[in-house]
Amino acid sequence: MAGLAHPGSQTHLFTKLSHQPKKFTPSSRIRMSLQENAPSLAVVGVTGAVGQEFLSVLSDRDFPYRSIKMLASKRSAGKQLTFQDRNYTIEELTEDSFDGVDIALFSAGGSISKHFGPVAVDKGAIVVDNSSAFRMEEGIPLVIPEVNPEAMEGIKVGMGKGALIANPNCSTIICLMAATPLHKHAKVLRMVVSTYQAASGAGAAAMEELELQTREVLEGKPPTCNIFKQQYAFNLFSHNAPILSNGYNEEEMKLVKETRKIWNDMNVKVTATCIRVPVMRAHAESINLQFQQPLDEDTAKDILKSAPGVVVIDDRASNHFPTPLEVSNKDNVAVGRIRRDLSQDGNKGLDIFVCGDQIRKGAALNAIQIAEMLL
Amino acid sequence: MAGLAHPGSQTHLFTKLSHQPKKFTPSSRIRMSLQENAPSLAVVGVTGAVGQEFLSVLSDRDFPYRSIKMLASKRSAGKQLTFQDRNYTIEELTEDSFDGVDIALFSAGGSISKHFGPVAVDKGAIVVDNSSAFRMEEGIPLVIPEVNPEAMEGIKVGMGKGALIANPNCSTIICLMAATPLHKHAKVLRMVVSTYQAASGAGAAAMEELELQTREVLEGKPPTCNIFKQQYAFNLFSHNAPILSNGYNEEEMKLVKETRKIWNDMNVKVTATCIRVPVMRAHAESINLQFQQPLDEDTAKDILKSAPGVVVIDDRASNHFPTPLEVSNKDNVAVGRIRRDLSQDGNKGLDIFVCGDQIRKGAALNAIQIAEMLL
Repeated sequence: MAGLAHPGSQTHLFTKLSHQPKKFTPSSRIRMSLQENAPSLAVVGVTGAVGQEFLSVLSDRDFPYRSIKMLASKRSAGKQLTFQDRNYTIEELTEDSFDGVDIALFSAGGSISKHFGPVAVDKGAIVVDNSSAFRMEEGIPLVIPEVNPEAMEGIKVGMGKGALIANPNCSTIICLMAATPLHKHAKVLRMVVSTYQAASGAGAAAMEELELQTREVLEGKPPTCNIFKQQYAFNLFSHNAPILSNGYNEEEMKLVKETRKIWNDMNVKVTATCIRVPVMRAHAESINLQFQQPLDEDTAKDILKSAPGVVVIDDRASNHFPTPLEVSNKDNVAVGRIRRDLSQDGNKGLDIFVCGDQIRKGAALNAIQIAEMLL
Repeated sequence: MAGLAHPGSQTHLFTKLSHQPKKFTPSSRIRMSLQENAPSLAVVGVTGAVGQEFLSVLSDRDFPYRSIKMLASKRSAGKQLTFQDRNYTIEELTEDSFDGVDIALFSAGGSISKHFGPVAVDKGAIVVDNSSAFRMEEGIPLVIPEVNPEAMEGIKVGMGKGALIANPNCSTIICLMAATPLHKHAKVLRMVVSTYQAASGAGAAAMEELELQTREVLEGKPPTCNIFKQQYAFNLFSHNAPILSNGYNEEEMKLVKETRKIWNDMNVKVTATCIRVPVMRAHAESINLQFQQPLDEDTAKDILKSAPGVVVIDDRASNHFPTPLEVSNKDNVAVGRIRRDLSQDGNKGLDIFVCGDQIRKGAALNAIQIAEMLL
């Protein structure tokens, strides 16, 4: 997303946001990804934070394609975008957008997915949808490739028929990347999750508002509140998702329900409190785990160290643990503060602290890993 | 802390930090607190964040005194300070500082308390100590006035002998202000706490560093890291307290141990994960509670609404819950997101979200409420 998601950008520099389309620098290695016998792609919502990250991850991973459609709302249609040394004109998303498309990557909100997802499937496309529209629908796989690849067994490009695969919510992906390897070893009975969620989860405009508000507050001016109804700079608040009748907000219930579906375990108990913190683009989560089988902290560390897509940052002597900044623009989810929970008997409880890039593994990367499995 | 702790400053304006001594505006009402038959006070660490807040709270609450000694390190000795229309010269803390002092309010770090606390007690002063030096020592009351006033029974000014009373850690005070009324009703068996701690907990210099770093990062410069070894602006990290051999940090173990002492319940189970977030002066805590007796959420709300020092902010329809900004410079601890925990059977679990001003109720106000009980 235009500067912010610049793949090479490094930790402590706060990269500026702007709406200039990003120029994805080509390389001889990357140019190889344009191949005649590769699938044709469509990116729906290409101007958004996740849409731009789709392009970034496609480039980074040399994802093969023979063509790519850049789709967005009418407002953005006609704008130019350079991707891997080629110029593209952004097209308006319509019912005809998916003719000849093999894989469509959606990230344009739930209502767009609800309407255009089935349209794309009817045209024979395999849709990887980043919205919450279809996640809990029976028969639709909800997939984290490192966690439950079996859920999308049999779905491949070239079968001649469309399909829909849902990308889980960012908080769920980040949580389960760390919890699943432990779950597979000792079976999680209950999880208590408290989140520290970045601005990026509410999109590029929210990130800009956090930056703008911070500048205003530092200048002694009242903060501009368009995306959020209250001051976000130097503040935090309960996640802005609607509150349900049980008192949980929708973001929290996603963690509860998606975990059950992904683990295929209707009995796992989950509670969550989701909080937005004034951080730009990576989420953190404090996770308390209760296991059926004993699991000591050294074994837990070893399991996590060898888990795909996970990196352990747990240096007690130098007080070095995962931070949002350190995982920004990174693929791996970082886990630290791994310790036996003193409040549970025996070796059946652990506390861990997890950070993951919300736009990358929490959204775009996971979707493209799903797409890679389709090839 | 000059500006920052300005009692009248309001929510969304981020008040600037500076090292100009604060002028405590007198009023006819406040002038009454200087009384001939009232106790003589000493404030140890008067130039620090909590020290300055001691003065602010003494003023706000018309605390009666006949004299007040402003004590600090050699570095600050000789500087001038205006308090309630009188000029004071800051004196260097020495072994002779406590002659004739009835109540000494300490907030100058653990080693100062360890050395000078007993000196003051020997001179007949009652010490209210904000450091962690004596909190877990047997025989020393650890007191939150709304929670366990009975712990300091019999200690009064004018008994002719000194005593030491410890102020709990800020995170413990804020947690127990909310948890205790529920504990008294349904008995807490286990608490899982995740904190969102402000810069103020590390002192005025940390607050200044957060502001400086934020300016630097917004200007694209590398952040100055003096107090913390890493970027704090737009980032968060595991609390900087030393990590113990069990993997918990000292801040977390304070929550575990102080809760047991304050509740006089060695069996209560507590686990905590303490995280620093880029917020200026109020802490937040996500608390998961497990009770012995059933407690539904409506009863819990009613109990909290009538609890002293607690305010309930729990408007689900408008998504209005406690925030650090809303409690900054406020006395009450705010509780919201009160809901039945879906991951526990029956009505024996609750999730709550709590915010409290770390410098005020988390430190200075609690200490002065203790001092009020001595009169």
